[in-house]
Amino acid sequence: MSYQLHYWPGIQGRGEFVRLALEAAGAPYVDVARGDMEAMLRYLDDDSVQRPPFAPPFLVDGKKVIGQTAAILLYLGPRLGLVGKSEADQLWTHQIQLTVADLVTEVHDTHHPIASSLYYEDQQPEAKRRAQDLLKNRVPKFLAWFEAILERSPRNAGKEVPHLVGARLSYVDLSLFQLVEGLSYAFPKAAARALRKAPRVLALHQGVPRNRRLAAYLASERRLLFNEQGIFRRYPELDR
Amino acid sequence: MSYQLHYWPGIQGRGEFVRLALEAAGAPYVDVARGDMEAMLRYLDDDSVQRPPFAPPFLVDGKKVIGQTAAILLYLGPRLGLVGKSEADQLWTHQIQLTVADLVTEVHDTHHPIASSLYYEDQQPEAKRRAQDLLKNRVPKFLAWFEAILERSPRNAGKEVPHLVGARLSYVDLSLFQLVEGLSYAFPKAAARALRKAPRVLALHQGVPRNRRLAAYLASERRLLFNEQGIFRRYPELDR
Repeated sequence: MSYQLHYWPGIQGRGEFVRLALEAAGAPYVDVARGDMEAMLRYLDDDSVQRPPFAPPFLVDGKKVIGQTAAILLYLGPRLGLVGKSEADQLWTHQIQLTVADLVTEVHDTHHPIASSLYYEDQQPEAKRRAQDLLKNRVPKFLAWFEAILERSPRNAGKEVPHLVGARLSYVDLSLFQLVEGLSYAFPKAAARALRKAPRVLALHQGVPRNRRLAAYLASERRLLFNEQGIFRRYPELDR
Repeated sequence: MSYQLHYWPGIQGRGEFVRLALEAAGAPYVDVARGDMEAMLRYLDDDSVQRPPFAPPFLVDGKKVIGQTAAILLYLGPRLGLVGKSEADQLWTHQIQLTVADLVTEVHDTHHPIASSLYYEDQQPEAKRRAQDLLKNRVPKFLAWFEAILERSPRNAGKEVPHLVGARLSYVDLSLFQLVEGLSYAFPKAAARALRKAPRVLALHQGVPRNRRLAAYLASERRLLFNEQGIFRRYPELDR
């Protein structure tokens, strides 16, 4: 049976981290809300759902309804062959994923530092200040951590394309690829500057699309373009 | 062997969610950084750590080093008897924990909406705007979700003290208890107002300290008081 992925249509957003895993594994899935928003909203709003997700994205697998991006990937990882078999590897992969998620939230807050319920234009001065801190302090700190992990992993010695955990592609490699994609879209100047100090992260970003199924997905119309409704938004005034 | 918990001394912070689980289960643990900050910093900074945590809190269990609060609780839950046995229950409990963590981050950002690297005083106007949105929109939305979960769980029918998952205390009950404690400390007026619409959350908050080990901990000097260096800070100008 197909997995059902429910996420806001029209943006990559947090749903994309799940989508990349499903696509790279060649797993059968339906992107439900692209055809039927009502089905998604029923899971969120209907009193009969005993374990309702707080927000999209969420995955439906038979009777199971799983929300929270990192929890979805924790669940899918072993089923899609996108994580190591040991408890230690699975927990470490999840821990890196949660840290990716933390940075994604900080990126979101550069354009919405005051309230998600307000327009960007109504919090633009604050957005400039917050983006400046993100690009000066936070992005370099996170990239240095990913770089250290890639450097210290013994399975990466001598490899052209490193992996975050073990010797094979895992879902968190896909997520770091997406993070670099997003940062490079939103902040082309600052991201390029920061990535110069993270050569292994760059090598991973370049190498991930060697996965043929992923490359086919990225070239397809299923891959939405980044835009200014998503998490990674290109507002040139924030890219300093 | 004892678990080692590493977290900034002097504040409850995110470490407290782990501490409550260890205390409620009566698990042997050492709060390392309260005596030895150097040991904590070594894990963060030393190149020889192959899988370094990004930030405290982290747990050391033998050779395993586990960062990210929710991942630590995912690991500890089954070992401490603080989560159900099925994969579905464990994933659902984790999903709720991740949602608690999201709100904790939003609370942190009320006093640091621009940058963690700046003082509160340097971002106070922004803090007022962000706190207003949090208390008007976000806290009620999260509390309504917790309330719905408590209401819909069939095991809570007729119970004086409800649980988030199943019929027994789980680590996420402890986390929701702590969240209510923190909100009530930081925003006494707004939290009381919001909690009036979440009677089951209030009942859980009142009932959790019936766990005797937890009650003993809360009355001990090991339980630090909330203060204005932690996540939940009482700045009266933000409590509207």
